[in-house]
Amino acid sequence: MPTPLLIHEIDATRQWVRERQRAGETVGVVPTMGALHAGHLSLAEAATKGCDRVIATVFVNPTQFAPSEDFERYPRDLEADAKKLGDVGVDAVFAPSVEAMYPPGATTSIDVGSVARPFEGAIRPTHFAGVATVVAKLLLIAPADRAYFGQKDYQQTVVVRRMVADLNLPIEVVVCPTVREADGIAMSSRNAYLSADERQRALCLSQGLREAERLHAAGERDASKLREAARRAIASTEGVELQYVAVLRDGTMDEVETVDAPAVIAVAARVGQTRLIDNVRLA
Amino acid sequence: MPTPLLIHEIDATRQWVRERQRAGETVGVVPTMGALHAGHLSLAEAATKGCDRVIATVFVNPTQFAPSEDFERYPRDLEADAKKLGDVGVDAVFAPSVEAMYPPGATTSIDVGSVARPFEGAIRPTHFAGVATVVAKLLLIAPADRAYFGQKDYQQTVVVRRMVADLNLPIEVVVCPTVREADGIAMSSRNAYLSADERQRALCLSQGLREAERLHAAGERDASKLREAARRAIASTEGVELQYVAVLRDGTMDEVETVDAPAVIAVAARVGQTRLIDNVRLA
Repeated sequence: MPTPLLIHEIDATRQWVRERQRAGETVGVVPTMGALHAGHLSLAEAATKGCDRVIATVFVNPTQFAPSEDFERYPRDLEADAKKLGDVGVDAVFAPSVEAMYPPGATTSIDVGSVARPFEGAIRPTHFAGVATVVAKLLLIAPADRAYFGQKDYQQTVVVRRMVADLNLPIEVVVCPTVREADGIAMSSRNAYLSADERQRALCLSQGLREAERLHAAGERDASKLREAARRAIASTEGVELQYVAVLRDGTMDEVETVDAPAVIAVAARVGQTRLIDNVRLA
Repeated sequence: MPTPLLIHEIDATRQWVRERQRAGETVGVVPTMGALHAGHLSLAEAATKGCDRVIATVFVNPTQFAPSEDFERYPRDLEADAKKLGDVGVDAVFAPSVEAMYPPGATTSIDVGSVARPFEGAIRPTHFAGVATVVAKLLLIAPADRAYFGQKDYQQTVVVRRMVADLNLPIEVVVCPTVREADGIAMSSRNAYLSADERQRALCLSQGLREAERLHAAGERDASKLREAARRAIASTEGVELQYVAVLRDGTMDEVETVDAPAVIAVAARVGQTRLIDNVRLA
């Protein structure tokens, strides 16, 4: 596969997207922070299947990290990322500098409101304002027809959908299934932080979710029982600190007590110094 | 002049703008809250001169009014507004319902940051979040090439320019001069609230600004002297309560002590129950 066109400038990116659209082609955009794994590449593949042209963005966005978090050490390898994207048929990669995205004097921030408050928002209070603002910027810089996000960051998909609807951004949000390793762990760039021992312990997240999924498939509709199944698997694993387990109405951040409609069970935990999140749909 | 096309739906508005652009025409958008006076119409005229096609928006935006303010009694007359817009050559008018702009569940808000905090932002703490959010929505619903705003709402122009730059909204912001009555008072839909007596007293705002302008033209560069000239004219008028007078670096909300570059002197006052604002450029 050819190497994708690498673009660093905002105007050139918008022009690339618009020229494709003027030629009658549909364009998909895949926002990423780089450090690409098979999960990201599945988004890119979905985009190449669903659109005539695909642009990925690679930008480690400082405003969605708290000062105590891993912005500095977040893995970066643009050359390797561009090659992977080219291999799955991505046409262009927008990789701006922090200065281009946040020039001196930039002060605007998007608050998506109630869906950004609980769970990840409670633990990372500035995170979703950073996410919403950078995603709005990226979707305006690369004004594609469809934007692709992963189910693994479930609350992010709820926040992005809410923002896109509320601001009348003219783009379709597509959410793609979580990609897992053979043993069940959800793909995440942050898995690279785990020691071999932590990697083993981290299995309890997907195992707990799978247990809840099994109970649901067997007819259990009491959310407290489903939460308890996931909680037990995670909390019983040494070196893993459960942060939350929640059963939510699918597409929302509303907790449900009875699963009488499609739902999502979501968990977050600390494994050593690394925060991991995961979720499965109950439908 | 023909009556402009009246559009109530969001999708039809975007389609109208995009079809003009696909035909190779430039489009201007003039966001208004209706109750149109010669100031608004001067924006529409500038748009018809600067663009091939013009769409105005007429929407009294509830989120930029505080509960104590005049949302309910704000003047509304869409038929008269559409006729006036048609008479100056506006092609289309987008006049949505509140429900179309803010469907149930809408929670997203845009905070433009420091330029939205002082002066109007200090007196009306929720105002500019409402303005920024609705302007972003309107510019995404009517994705024109240029958007026209009046200098009379100076801080609003600073907030809108900041937001457009920070979110990478692909539109040029054009700011047009304040239009005044023969006696100097700045045109404002809220002038309609003034009694004959209040209307006379309200003259002190533009008179105070004119006095500062005269001093500046005569070489005065000390901002405190310019502020004092405006303050004296306003504070000495019975029934008028001065809220602020500020000398700002042009294009910013930064107060200056010495006017050694283009600046703006801005005032706000209460005349009876009516808040009025005005400003002049010192350049």
